[in-house]
Amino acid sequence: MGSVHARSILEGKVPRAALCAVTDFNPQSAARFPVQAFADSEAMIRSGLIDAILITTPHFSHTSIGIAALEAGLHVLVEKPISVHKADCESLIAAYRPERQIFAAMFNQRTDPLYARLRAMIHGGELGPVRRIQWTVTNWFRTQAYYNSGGWRATWAGEGGGVLLNQCPHNLDLWQWIFGMPDKVRAFARTGRYHDIEVEDDVTAYFEYRDGAHGVFITSTGEAPGTNRLEVAAENGRVVMENDVLSYSRNEVPMTKFSNTAAGGFDRPKTTEISLPFKERGAQHNGIMSNFVDAILDGAPLLAPATEGIYSVELANAMLLSSFENETISLPLDSARYESFLQQKIVQSKAKPAGIVTTAPADLSKSFNI
Amino acid sequence: MGSVHARSILEGKVPRAALCAVTDFNPQSAARFPVQAFADSEAMIRSGLIDAILITTPHFSHTSIGIAALEAGLHVLVEKPISVHKADCESLIAAYRPERQIFAAMFNQRTDPLYARLRAMIHGGELGPVRRIQWTVTNWFRTQAYYNSGGWRATWAGEGGGVLLNQCPHNLDLWQWIFGMPDKVRAFARTGRYHDIEVEDDVTAYFEYRDGAHGVFITSTGEAPGTNRLEVAAENGRVVMENDVLSYSRNEVPMTKFSNTAAGGFDRPKTTEISLPFKERGAQHNGIMSNFVDAILDGAPLLAPATEGIYSVELANAMLLSSFENETISLPLDSARYESFLQQKIVQSKAKPAGIVTTAPADLSKSFNI
Repeated sequence: MGSVHARSILEGKVPRAALCAVTDFNPQSAARFPVQAFADSEAMIRSGLIDAILITTPHFSHTSIGIAALEAGLHVLVEKPISVHKADCESLIAAYRPERQIFAAMFNQRTDPLYARLRAMIHGGELGPVRRIQWTVTNWFRTQAYYNSGGWRATWAGEGGGVLLNQCPHNLDLWQWIFGMPDKVRAFARTGRYHDIEVEDDVTAYFEYRDGAHGVFITSTGEAPGTNRLEVAAENGRVVMENDVLSYSRNEVPMTKFSNTAAGGFDRPKTTEISLPFKERGAQHNGIMSNFVDAILDGAPLLAPATEGIYSVELANAMLLSSFENETISLPLDSARYESFLQQKIVQSKAKPAGIVTTAPADLSKSFNI
Repeated sequence: MGSVHARSILEGKVPRAALCAVTDFNPQSAARFPVQAFADSEAMIRSGLIDAILITTPHFSHTSIGIAALEAGLHVLVEKPISVHKADCESLIAAYRPERQIFAAMFNQRTDPLYARLRAMIHGGELGPVRRIQWTVTNWFRTQAYYNSGGWRATWAGEGGGVLLNQCPHNLDLWQWIFGMPDKVRAFARTGRYHDIEVEDDVTAYFEYRDGAHGVFITSTGEAPGTNRLEVAAENGRVVMENDVLSYSRNEVPMTKFSNTAAGGFDRPKTTEISLPFKERGAQHNGIMSNFVDAILDGAPLLAPATEGIYSVELANAMLLSSFENETISLPLDSARYESFLQQKIVQSKAKPAGIVTTAPADLSKSFNI
């Protein structure tokens, strides 16, 4: 992803941003760019060549590189997930000084007009109180070759999880951005169900909210063709988002009010059907980078503050903890408990079979799934 | 429902069936039919006037009336659910003597060509192994007036449950008929969430199968407009049933085989899109009654043997037990444990407020939801 973003900057797709330096674990990758290449991020952070850093390294290093950059006073844009577990998110966020720097996260799907519209419908009151949410996002199909393409992939030590940490941060961020954080999480994750990997590639979760609303989140990297369908049952009607269309069945009378006042047992509120196609996916990654630059130069409000990145991580962590411990997890999650759970997973982790860590890198430009 | 079925027989919609006698808790209702009316079912069973009985009384009495009729040697067709809890199902089924009588259940939705087609696709191997099932059936909207229309409605003593026992037996029967019984059930039921009732009107459940398949079942009588959408992810593709259409995205290569053999990390199997509209809903109740008569007179195989009626009850019972006891329930369900759980609910049951038990009866011809 770092190469993709660096090329976007070089190609002028992020106004007022300049690529001044790069670093990569692989020096050959870094050498492909017409700017100074550093052997490690510490050297680049201390170089004085950069005002801001975009961190697109493997997940675990987001925390260490992020803290170093924040402490050096740089503006920081970090890829999702901002860290692998909640305690690391807390450490990372603790290094942030709002008075001196901008700290954003690459939640590019917040730029999608489809999700922005749903959020506006809920936060603006158009839909009325939300009663039930259901998001099935099983169109993250990945082959075994994908998992074989990097030694850090799909290991507890390398990624700290599977589909929840790698593919779903966007979905989980959108969930909390649109619906807020649940009160309780009960999840059922399967590790290596569809692939020869040690982490989860198939998850069903049940979320409970304090006001009685609840939701189901289902994801997998093993299903083809898979589904991406978000349904919201609210007092003023039902919204379904699928295949780039937001379908809204709007009740003439809110459903609970109707239930309490109708004379007939089988009466139903009349509905108006509204269908809104969304062909454009918004500015996505370049939009987040532009907003980051605008925040630095003009004080523009951030679309995706990194401080909000803790929530998608917390949801992912809570789902894994619930699954493995076979219990309902109350939020806020005990971050120390989760960290020790994850450390145990890492200690018990089996090394990947020899030979599969050196295959060609996957073409990550195909990974956005939007 | 009894009046609806009796009229169908009188109108000749069930070939070779004759309405010979009726009984009703309300003598005025029984008197509307041009046949002998009995004051109670025992008298009718012993009358010698009937060869077969159709039981459409409140749920709890299915067991007692059914046992009496079976022991008297009558052929028996019983409305869903065949009993309220698994132990009663066991007692009822124990009274059945296959060598002397036909014993069927009113699972009329098994006559629907849509569900029959899906079952054939799975049982015939067309879909390949099923990996995940998701059925959201929240279009059972009922108003408070519905619940106020009968004193037995939506009480532990009167119905032994709510949406799972009254509205969902068809869905749960179709689930087990098509997909078989799960191994484990974890459910989250809410009582009186949308209505002033003491039983559940909103349920989310997670089912696990021994082979690793799993499913989510969501139902409610509080949502409007609600959803009825069944999705099946299988090795050979994905089926979605919604709005009278069966949509099948057929994989050219089964998904797991594809994952294990594709060279690219983001490759996906090619699919063929097949859309099968089902405008006809099949013979429904009259079809079940005709099949019952054909079984008696010609030895035709039953489409819905009552012995299979225990499974939908077991699923409903397991969901309630899981919810209230906050635990995963392994199947087969311990029927004695559930019976004592239910007895406790009945003992703790609050009487309905005075005055709401005498409103006009609901028009049940609107209740089929097909």
